[in-house]
Amino acid sequence: MSNSRPDGSSSETVPAAPARGLSRRRLVAGAGALGVAGAAAGFFTGRATAEPGEAGEILDLSRRYEFYTGGHQAGIATLPQRYCVFMTFDVTAVTAEAVKVLLARWSAAIAQLMAGLPVGSIEPTRSGAVAADTGEALDLAPSGLTVTLGLGPGLFDERFGLADRRPRLLEDLPELPSDQLRPPLTGGDLSLQACADDPQVAYHAIRDLARMARGSANTRWVVLGFGRASAGSGQTTPRNLLGFKDGTRNLTSAGELDEHVWLGDGTDVDWMTGGTYQVVRKIRMDIEIWDADDITDQQGIFARKKISGAPLTGKSEFDTPDFSATDASGDLVIDPTSHVALAAHENNDGIKILRRSYNFTDGINDLGQLDAGLLFVSYQRTPASFIALQRRLGASDRLNEYIAHVGSGIFAVPPAPTKGHFLAEDMFA
Amino acid sequence: MSNSRPDGSSSETVPAAPARGLSRRRLVAGAGALGVAGAAAGFFTGRATAEPGEAGEILDLSRRYEFYTGGHQAGIATLPQRYCVFMTFDVTAVTAEAVKVLLARWSAAIAQLMAGLPVGSIEPTRSGAVAADTGEALDLAPSGLTVTLGLGPGLFDERFGLADRRPRLLEDLPELPSDQLRPPLTGGDLSLQACADDPQVAYHAIRDLARMARGSANTRWVVLGFGRASAGSGQTTPRNLLGFKDGTRNLTSAGELDEHVWLGDGTDVDWMTGGTYQVVRKIRMDIEIWDADDITDQQGIFARKKISGAPLTGKSEFDTPDFSATDASGDLVIDPTSHVALAAHENNDGIKILRRSYNFTDGINDLGQLDAGLLFVSYQRTPASFIALQRRLGASDRLNEYIAHVGSGIFAVPPAPTKGHFLAEDMFA
Repeated sequence: MSNSRPDGSSSETVPAAPARGLSRRRLVAGAGALGVAGAAAGFFTGRATAEPGEAGEILDLSRRYEFYTGGHQAGIATLPQRYCVFMTFDVTAVTAEAVKVLLARWSAAIAQLMAGLPVGSIEPTRSGAVAADTGEALDLAPSGLTVTLGLGPGLFDERFGLADRRPRLLEDLPELPSDQLRPPLTGGDLSLQACADDPQVAYHAIRDLARMARGSANTRWVVLGFGRASAGSGQTTPRNLLGFKDGTRNLTSAGELDEHVWLGDGTDVDWMTGGTYQVVRKIRMDIEIWDADDITDQQGIFARKKISGAPLTGKSEFDTPDFSATDASGDLVIDPTSHVALAAHENNDGIKILRRSYNFTDGINDLGQLDAGLLFVSYQRTPASFIALQRRLGASDRLNEYIAHVGSGIFAVPPAPTKGHFLAEDMFA
Repeated sequence: MSNSRPDGSSSETVPAAPARGLSRRRLVAGAGALGVAGAAAGFFTGRATAEPGEAGEILDLSRRYEFYTGGHQAGIATLPQRYCVFMTFDVTAVTAEAVKVLLARWSAAIAQLMAGLPVGSIEPTRSGAVAADTGEALDLAPSGLTVTLGLGPGLFDERFGLADRRPRLLEDLPELPSDQLRPPLTGGDLSLQACADDPQVAYHAIRDLARMARGSANTRWVVLGFGRASAGSGQTTPRNLLGFKDGTRNLTSAGELDEHVWLGDGTDVDWMTGGTYQVVRKIRMDIEIWDADDITDQQGIFARKKISGAPLTGKSEFDTPDFSATDASGDLVIDPTSHVALAAHENNDGIKILRRSYNFTDGINDLGQLDAGLLFVSYQRTPASFIALQRRLGASDRLNEYIAHVGSGIFAVPPAPTKGHFLAEDMFA
């Protein structure tokens, strides 16, 4: 169980074993022992105490990630933090120069924010001085903040003379089966994904970056993710708001990331080398209707057991599903239209995507029902991977009775700059 | 610096010194040293490692509070946890017996939830079995969850024969200066305040309690608080989304709580002895407009310095404001219409209320602006205390240019039951 850190975490970690068990109490007791042992180890070695977002009992908010790595942007392979604020923007600036200035200013600010610093002075240094930083994160720990920038297809239209820089694969997603998209929740010329182990730190980052964009870009849509719903290597698999473990078969190893996520040499546009494509979907879940469904049916829909997360053909969460196993009556144990069967790489020509999702709630809807769902975020070498998977899922997934894709966006994610440079700088070259 | 625990926390704590300083980096370094030392101490003594919601770097999610204390309900004097989900309900049941059954079921479920347990089985024990618990908190630590029940004025109308049990002071709040209330965000026959150091644990509690209420009570309004904005004894004062420390002069000592919050013997209705009154206001903040105001003006509006939180007449956060101090030109240093001056007990016949507020965001409003604010929650022996303060603030507070009270509710909070009993049981006697 290795914790690869392609994004330059500034602190080493003591890997914590995922907590497993049947009752919440038992899990807690188990995780407690591990967590505290981890904390003590951390004290004597100067290392951090637990994975961010780990289901254990001790959460270390001191973690800081480096922005100027010159490698991949942080917030992709980075072990998923607990919270996320995702926002997209419409560029209102009319020149490429103005876009350049915005990206340069954002880059400098993101470096400050990830280091746990304000984006500028708050002191009343002169009469009429307006604070450069809004201040609400002043006393908060860095909390493992990462901010990840994405560039939408609209940035490469006729406005900025960037059409010939457009990554060939960056196109608006096609209409997909079961789409129920609401236009105000789709698209955007730019995206910012701020993830942290304190939601106020993530919100502060997005707020101050949005503020900095005034006059150049307007806010378009935003989702506040309040619970991690994807796991990285060594993290406990979290649960979505349907109560099921989500992302058991997620990508974790560096090898898989290289194969399925990162754009290597030979990319059509040089400035995207080391980058990737981000797909975001705001998925509404009819949780009240779901809650009325019986457990056996729920388990059949996912093809996993609710408590353990094991496939219906296995005993433990990480057992490989057996899609050909039959029961006593000769029927397939795993329904081919179950979520797991439709999404499995075995049934999709080996397609894998890196999922990095978060649970959200929008309160109560017009019908008085709880309004909640999943902020689905995935990273992949080619949007075609997501499109192929969602075509199958959207057409056949038994889960579609309970979910609706209402928001959507696609973004090209450039690599991280080195010091003295800014995000997507090479795009303008 | 004592950490009084009237609510029966099940784990002792190592008090962590509040981190103070000028730069976010400096604070982080200071808190880090304390946090890791605390974690190690916790390992060897079996004690918890840091205050919940503390600005330090180590967050202990193992804390559990006891429900069946027979004393005050948890979630009031309890040190404010980091996150909160607040929901109100309209009772649709038509008999007092149905209300009684709901409160009995809720009480049993709250006891389970606070102990870190599911509210019932998730196993498919029989064909067609529906899960009793929705499952999304199954692997999560207890996270210091508290759930606090409030009873609204509507519960004592003609429907349930409870009119003669109504606490005399429980009346709808009068219209207050500057009110911009939106009816869908006001009132409710019942309130549930779930606070925890993991927002998914708080959301799970509210969701499962709302689910349990189906057929007896409908959801009315809800706010998800993503950042603590009030401090208890020994906690670092947190910041609201205006970037200022909020609640520096909050009640903290047990003596003050007895004097200003808890209903003692001689209460007009016996069943409220040990209870209190809860006032809730959803306060929208025009943070984008606020951010354009200069720091000196902002500081004048609060009468506090933004970074340190010190009153304009003092040097440190906890210095007592001097409301009669004048500057070189003979003008008062603290504007009498500043927030601090209008709210101070010195200027309000000694009135004090216990504030327990949270920052929230509702995303982006129709104008494309960040939609955010403060879920103000206060507890007091008499609603008249809140009413008096808000009459003055609503009429004159310079802050009113930037805020609007859009939601409102008032609730009677009964004491906690002992084992074998349920919340407000004595009300039916």
